[in-house]
Amino acid sequence: MSKISFKNDYSEGAHPAILSALSETNLVPQEGYGYDAYCEEARAMIRRECDLPEADIYFVSGGTQTNLLVISHLLRPHEAVIAAASGHINVHETGAIESTGHKVCTVPTPLGKLTTDDILAVLTHHTDEHMVKPAMVYISQSTEFGTLYSRRELSELSAFCRAHGLLLYLDGARIGSAVTASGEDNPSLREIAALVDAFYIGGTKNGALLGEAIVFTSRRPDNAFLFQIKQRGAMLAKGRILGIQFATLFRNGLFYELATHANRMAAELSAGIAACSYSFLYPSQTNQIFPILPNSLIEKLSTEYDFYVWQSVSPDSSAIRLVTSWATPPENVAAIIHSISSYRH
Amino acid sequence: MSKISFKNDYSEGAHPAILSALSETNLVPQEGYGYDAYCEEARAMIRRECDLPEADIYFVSGGTQTNLLVISHLLRPHEAVIAAASGHINVHETGAIESTGHKVCTVPTPLGKLTTDDILAVLTHHTDEHMVKPAMVYISQSTEFGTLYSRRELSELSAFCRAHGLLLYLDGARIGSAVTASGEDNPSLREIAALVDAFYIGGTKNGALLGEAIVFTSRRPDNAFLFQIKQRGAMLAKGRILGIQFATLFRNGLFYELATHANRMAAELSAGIAACSYSFLYPSQTNQIFPILPNSLIEKLSTEYDFYVWQSVSPDSSAIRLVTSWATPPENVAAIIHSISSYRH
Amino acid sequence: MSKISFKNDYSEGAHPAILSALSETNLVPQEGYGYDAYCEEARAMIRRECDLPEADIYFVSGGTQTNLLVISHLLRPHEAVIAAASGHINVHETGAIESTGHKVCTVPTPLGKLTTDDILAVLTHHTDEHMVKPAMVYISQSTEFGTLYSRRELSELSAFCRAHGLLLYLDGARIGSAVTASGEDNPSLREIAALVDAFYIGGTKNGALLGEAIVFTSRRPDNAFLFQIKQRGAMLAKGRILGIQFATLFRNGLFYELATHANRMAAELSAGIAACSYSFLYPSQTNQIFPILPNSLIEKLSTEYDFYVWQSVSPDSSAIRLVTSWATPPENVAAIIHSISSYRH
Amino acid sequence: MSKISFKNDYSEGAHPAILSALSETNLVPQEGYGYDAYCEEARAMIRRECDLPEADIYFVSGGTQTNLLVISHLLRPHEAVIAAASGHINVHETGAIESTGHKVCTVPTPLGKLTTDDILAVLTHHTDEHMVKPAMVYISQSTEFGTLYSRRELSELSAFCRAHGLLLYLDGARIGSAVTASGEDNPSLREIAALVDAFYIGGTKNGALLGEAIVFTSRRPDNAFLFQIKQRGAMLAKGRILGIQFATLFRNGLFYELATHANRMAAELSAGIAACSYSFLYPSQTNQIFPILPNSLIEKLSTEYDFYVWQSVSPDSSAIRLVTSWATPPENVAAIIHSISSYRH
Repeated sequence: MSKISFKNDYSEGAHPAILSALSETNLVPQEGYGYDAYCEEARAMIRRECDLPEADIYFVSGGTQTNLLVISHLLRPHEAVIAAASGHINVHETGAIESTGHKVCTVPTPLGKLTTDDILAVLTHHTDEHMVKPAMVYISQSTEFGTLYSRRELSELSAFCRAHGLLLYLDGARIGSAVTASGEDNPSLREIAALVDAFYIGGTKNGALLGEAIVFTSRRPDNAFLFQIKQRGAMLAKGRILGIQFATLFRNGLFYELATHANRMAAELSAGIAACSYSFLYPSQTNQIFPILPNSLIEKLSTEYDFYVWQSVSPDSSAIRLVTSWATPPENVAAIIHSISSYRH
Repeated sequence: MSKISFKNDYSEGAHPAILSALSETNLVPQEGYGYDAYCEEARAMIRRECDLPEADIYFVSGGTQTNLLVISHLLRPHEAVIAAASGHINVHETGAIESTGHKVCTVPTPLGKLTTDDILAVLTHHTDEHMVKPAMVYISQSTEFGTLYSRRELSELSAFCRAHGLLLYLDGARIGSAVTASGEDNPSLREIAALVDAFYIGGTKNGALLGEAIVFTSRRPDNAFLFQIKQRGAMLAKGRILGIQFATLFRNGLFYELATHANRMAAELSAGIAACSYSFLYPSQTNQIFPILPNSLIEKLSTEYDFYVWQSVSPDSSAIRLVTSWATPPENVAAIIHSISSYRH
Repeated sequence: MSKISFKNDYSEGAHPAILSALSETNLVPQEGYGYDAYCEEARAMIRRECDLPEADIYFVSGGTQTNLLVISHLLRPHEAVIAAASGHINVHETGAIESTGHKVCTVPTPLGKLTTDDILAVLTHHTDEHMVKPAMVYISQSTEFGTLYSRRELSELSAFCRAHGLLLYLDGARIGSAVTASGEDNPSLREIAALVDAFYIGGTKNGALLGEAIVFTSRRPDNAFLFQIKQRGAMLAKGRILGIQFATLFRNGLFYELATHANRMAAELSAGIAACSYSFLYPSQTNQIFPILPNSLIEKLSTEYDFYVWQSVSPDSSAIRLVTSWATPPENVAAIIHSISSYRH
Repeated sequence: MSKISFKNDYSEGAHPAILSALSETNLVPQEGYGYDAYCEEARAMIRRECDLPEADIYFVSGGTQTNLLVISHLLRPHEAVIAAASGHINVHETGAIESTGHKVCTVPTPLGKLTTDDILAVLTHHTDEHMVKPAMVYISQSTEFGTLYSRRELSELSAFCRAHGLLLYLDGARIGSAVTASGEDNPSLREIAALVDAFYIGGTKNGALLGEAIVFTSRRPDNAFLFQIKQRGAMLAKGRILGIQFATLFRNGLFYELATHANRMAAELSAGIAACSYSFLYPSQTNQIFPILPNSLIEKLSTEYDFYVWQSVSPDSSAIRLVTSWATPPENVAAIIHSISSYRH
């Protein structure tokens, strides 16, 4: 019997509605490279969803690809991007941003969230041509720690960036989980779209086979970005497969429904673990949670469940990362809660 | 009524067997990033198919991505790659190779095929550290002109490269069509695999939704190539979707079957056009043909059919490119032959 | 006894006036990195000389460095530069331009000079995002073949580039020799400055120890170029040594005097060789000449003189390159003419 | 009256012996690009000085250029370099290393010096292909804080790097000051040469007009590095000017003599300031010192002296950086000590 996985949100294929859509459209000939009717339809849907009738929207395959494309496109060679030290571009992209020639200026943050003070400190430090010129701020929503920028926090960042001539770019690999999280402070997709210069809507981690939708909100790049997509090897000949998936996700709110399910599973998991009197490394309302458990318990759990051990917290305990997704069945959640509860006695 | 398309071999989705395989495996949880069981299975099949039990095999999304990954991985910063001027990397990749820092040294060729004399001329020209150092030869099979290197030609190139310390890399975007082409001189997949240092097996243009299989034949790189794939944004979280497709293509010979169909459609098209006494710009046995037609006929055809006008041949005539694929129905071929035949009267 | 050298124009150190100026200023403390008084003085002199009171001027060490700095600074990542196939950036810079990510689109030219038709052909060929976007034209004055663009030719190129949104950049490694060449058609420094977007004034090949003056004429870049200079390792801590040299060269016309001498030596050499009834590969009015000589004569000459054999012209004859400089003594010219004349008998 | 400068060690030109050597050799024709007799002589001297008869030695213009050349040459695309957060490559090179595609992995250090524990922490953190692969350690001797690695510390780093397959590269912009510093624990040039894989001997900050000597100690790269030098625009046509300078510096120990003078001036400065009961931010035995002074005193000093204010230490006090050089006259040291002493009363 294989283990039950809480390792990530991309262990399965796609939501069945997406596979159906791929099948139904399969033999309709279309233009290549994103000029097909499905991509057009998906772009129109996303523009409506974001209330950005003029937004430029591009579909590519994955998050690291998206980040390197957007950042290298918007920065000049000597410009740098500011990020939390825990930011995906700093930790988990094998130097993809540096590979395009740009430095990532990092700030340690307790919850994976940048503040305007953090950014100001970087700006103050960079005084002349002997140092890179910070020109963009990179944030993730939800963050790599499952945390969220509140509406107010994001507004402050946005105002600060505009006042200081910095571009604000938001990594939305898990934006679905972010915009459907419980709580009244969380910015919606439209609110995010109004506050940043560019962001992406993650499909891969919310039910698609692959695909991220890049949205340029505040200024209309010429078609230079298409050249960039092609040059970096990110243009799919059958671009249709990305359009079909996003059109399916944004038809009848499937995108939100899937993310809501993942959040609900995570919330049940959190509640069950908290009921066992365990605490959490970060406060998360999204589909990644980081309970702190005794190492002995972690060892037992790992015989039946797949997950990452995140970091050591004390000699006897560690935080683990548990991730839920659109595909997580409630019984898996119940099972692991049961195990945690049983093992501790 | 929309036009009948002979524009390319990626206008449709995937062969139905691939969609079925995606559906059947959809909810089986798997490791991400290419560590899944389907990728393993596909690698094993390709190793057998190529008779290369030790080959390192990686799956990525598209051809330009593959070329930039392999070339930038195998070359040192000051090294260059030699290609036919018509080579895909020189013409149609938006400078992807140069974007990774490497010069493409080009040679004009009548049929898109490099000879050892062409390569020797480049080597002779590059004498010292004031010039790049040519270190790799890039060829395509089939070429961008639909032509093929014969077994003898490929063997000569291979021997020459080995004698001169050059890596030989073969772009197999249309290798399916190449290895199933009629004629006794065409090298098979195994023969190609034995003669080059690296090549790729194109899935996108032979029935897959997306996907190319990169094969390193002659030396076993360490896992540095995985870092490269990630760094360039080419690593899919759900790597399974590439493994599933290639496993389907190489199960029961579907890969060859699809390419054979495309070639047969092209051969019928060629025969029909030749029967109308038109000639061809290049001699092609593969799924791209380049008939030379009167401009007036081209104009009429273009009202009903989609295709590229390739180049002007005389004031009154031009070569067009017609491409067939696994999805081309025989009736489309019959239709355009009928149209060509009718229009000329 | 060592050979007499006609190999290049950088075999000696600097004109003595430059060494004197370095000595005289040696112990005066100055700001680093080009902010010193001498650089300011040299910039002012060059602005006057070019009649460009607003020009941005930067000093760096060498020609390849200059070319990669200017080109990578002015182009966006997907943009390319058009050059003659014989252009220095294409042949003799070890792929420096490609190393910064940009393709060089080349055109074969008989005399090393681009025409508007050449450029138009490149533009016509590059139609969409699958190809690089040509955005700059690179020319050399004098060219790598010692030839010159006439005032009319340069005006036509300039008008064409402006009409087509292309930047025009002129490599002036040997601009001294160009602007002092005999003939009424040759554009002056001011005329060149009025017709291009950026160019550089070569010091290394006209009497300096090292140094090129980069002039941006048509638009005022922000200080981003300083970041670029630093980032590429081209900023000298003791920037003063470049300013001192250029101030010396442009004080009392030394720059023109040195180049005029080099041209005069080359003209005498040409006349002497022509008097022996030998012809030339290219018509040159500058300090590089390319006589075609019998191979047997070349062999004899090479025992006493240093020079490059440029290319084979017939089975029995080759063109050689002879270069003169500010340091070439008339007796060396007389000596080689005498040798050529003697050997042929 | 201009201010007395303690701003840096590159405010003047060159030591007079260097200017003399440039003059004496000025009209001797030589091969270009570093193939001249002076470069050969200097290489031989440095090999002897380092007791490395097989070392590969190259001369280039400046420190940032050296760092980007060596690091990008020795690393593969996905590899990264580990540095103290205060390292020159991380702070003051405008992202030069990242510009060549490589990430700098940084560790905060109190004194600008890496320990094996620091390095181990970076290695432990980087586990797989989703992160860069640390492959080199970068240290500076003396450091950016004027501090020094002791013989034991450097030996430990060296042993650790060899055990872990890491290259050890030492930035010797101020290696002259380091190897002539007082104290018995400081490694000599030969000891450094025996412990690292590559380093450079800084000329610019020790009396040269410009120039750094790159030494590859532990393995003999093929001539690929020459291609790299040319490709990055770092090859001087008149390479002789670098050879002449280094030959002068290493003839009769001038290199050590100049550095010893700078250190002695700094030691006098330190003693004088300490005698006024001020303390220092870092313990320095080299030519950079960092006294902590009252802000009011700093303000007064700044009317007569040039220096950098390094960082705020308390609301009322800051550390300043005072740098001495081969050209610092003892009377300048006496003057500033007198001023500090006077102002505090």
